[in-house]
Amino acid sequence: MAVYTDVSDGALRAFLSEYQIGDLTAFRGIAEGVENSNFVLRTTGGDFILTLYERRVDPDDLPWFLGLMGYLSDHGLSCPRPVPARDGAALRTLAGRPAAVTTFLSGVWPRQVLPAHCAPVGAALATLHAAGQGYDAVRPNALGPAAWPALVAACRADGDSVQPGLMAELDAALAEILPAWPGQGGHADLPRGQIHADLFPDNVFFLDGAVSGIIDFYFACTDILAYDIAICLNAWCFDADGSFDVAKSRALIAGYESVRPLSEAERRALPVLASGGALRFLLTRLYDWVNTPPGAMVTRKDPLDYLRRLRFHRAVRDGGAYGL
Amino acid sequence: MAVYTDVSDGALRAFLSEYQIGDLTAFRGIAEGVENSNFVLRTTGGDFILTLYERRVDPDDLPWFLGLMGYLSDHGLSCPRPVPARDGAALRTLAGRPAAVTTFLSGVWPRQVLPAHCAPVGAALATLHAAGQGYDAVRPNALGPAAWPALVAACRADGDSVQPGLMAELDAALAEILPAWPGQGGHADLPRGQIHADLFPDNVFFLDGAVSGIIDFYFACTDILAYDIAICLNAWCFDADGSFDVAKSRALIAGYESVRPLSEAERRALPVLASGGALRFLLTRLYDWVNTPPGAMVTRKDPLDYLRRLRFHRAVRDGGAYGL
Repeated sequence: MAVYTDVSDGALRAFLSEYQIGDLTAFRGIAEGVENSNFVLRTTGGDFILTLYERRVDPDDLPWFLGLMGYLSDHGLSCPRPVPARDGAALRTLAGRPAAVTTFLSGVWPRQVLPAHCAPVGAALATLHAAGQGYDAVRPNALGPAAWPALVAACRADGDSVQPGLMAELDAALAEILPAWPGQGGHADLPRGQIHADLFPDNVFFLDGAVSGIIDFYFACTDILAYDIAICLNAWCFDADGSFDVAKSRALIAGYESVRPLSEAERRALPVLASGGALRFLLTRLYDWVNTPPGAMVTRKDPLDYLRRLRFHRAVRDGGAYGL
Repeated sequence: MAVYTDVSDGALRAFLSEYQIGDLTAFRGIAEGVENSNFVLRTTGGDFILTLYERRVDPDDLPWFLGLMGYLSDHGLSCPRPVPARDGAALRTLAGRPAAVTTFLSGVWPRQVLPAHCAPVGAALATLHAAGQGYDAVRPNALGPAAWPALVAACRADGDSVQPGLMAELDAALAEILPAWPGQGGHADLPRGQIHADLFPDNVFFLDGAVSGIIDFYFACTDILAYDIAICLNAWCFDADGSFDVAKSRALIAGYESVRPLSEAERRALPVLASGGALRFLLTRLYDWVNTPPGAMVTRKDPLDYLRRLRFHRAVRDGGAYGL
């Protein structure tokens, strides 16, 4: 739930006077989103989203993110399109924060993932990957495998307080995953491109059973395309009781392949990529867990949800577990 | 910032199937509001607000609140109008909570109150009071003077930890205000009716300098009309540095009187009513402050803001201080 920075009337009016998007008629803070402050902005010209970028986003990355969103939107993906002001610039400043106006997308994100959601989300992910091939600028994945040893180290002192033996298990997982990673230790690399890297259900809007929009590109980066599928296997294919639902993963991968077929090497790499995806979310959640004062006004997500996912993927021996 | 209860897709679909308001096209949690969970609900028929009533609202009061909103909306006030489902009932159940759909209002609440806001808000308050005269059902003010001694008692053990000497000052204020209250101790009563009782800036939307809507009627009750003005003097007329801005109060009262002139007795009672208003918000904030665990996910508002207001009003000797 997030409005971290509020916007005074005068500042909002001055900000909007630089745009040609009509006159303001309504302005409401949005509860969703944990990284930035978001508002629904209604004008006589339509609906828009106003985002103020908070401290977790590096301002230097914003031109890349906004450029990617504009490019994907131009190339067949339904995603927020940055709206430039009169001077042509979409990235501006408001209330002391970097800020941008983007288009409003219809749809509702699924609170409860059903197998029927998974083929459309797989196809939308492949559409994103295909469209992103023409966007040449590279943004390295700041939360990729190279970052994991430092995250483990940062959690070492307090991690076992969350669950005894946790840090030893993370050390073992890291020692297994890193040398097996595509492009590492003699393993062939896999196709790379622009990935979303955070395609959880609350970032995907549906309307009438179809994906109507993908949002929140502020973890997007240039990395192994199949790693994005592996993140989706973690984000979409485990049931509320923690069990893996192979019907969901089969549908998700089939949906993906309806747009972009996977190579044999990509399929073979799914278990290690999915293990890495589970480890990545486990580590950032664990880091936040042990570094968030109990009184802080943020929702801490349980890192152990991802320990169960990590164990599942590490035990996978072939693609059959994913319905391949 | 508030979405306390989320709504599953299936439950939302089933809920909306009972209405004739078109097909769902978008659904976003709203950050504003601290008592209930609110969502903007867009359908092919327009925009609506969906509210789930949380624990602080007594379900038995909801028919009165929704009835009042419908009545005021029918009688010239721009406020949320409850939208009945096909069976005619507006108060329903969703996700285990009482729930209602209301109309969406345009406008933006003022983050920074200017004198120019105050005449329109005064006029809107008087319009509410005039319209409410035809709504006969009575709801006693659960946070009126009769409730203050118990709130003081509930804060006694910990209150002085917020500021030394605070409880003695509250005892003195209470001993001064209660006997001087209209209708008490031989004082004549004042005109009564339906009051909003919580008309803070975040409950008033403006558009092009005019009030476009008044929201959040969940503290509304049947009480002294001028007490509602006294609450507004507290909510709208102090500057950010804590000083009272007589230009704002003069405008607010003049705006009010452009619709409903005050009697001499109402004017004379403003200092004690305003002292009571300051005490009421001081006490509920203090109660929340001393009873909220530091780690709880709610924003505690500083009670001492209202100690300064209380001191100001207790020192007022005549209406000149309010610009009368």
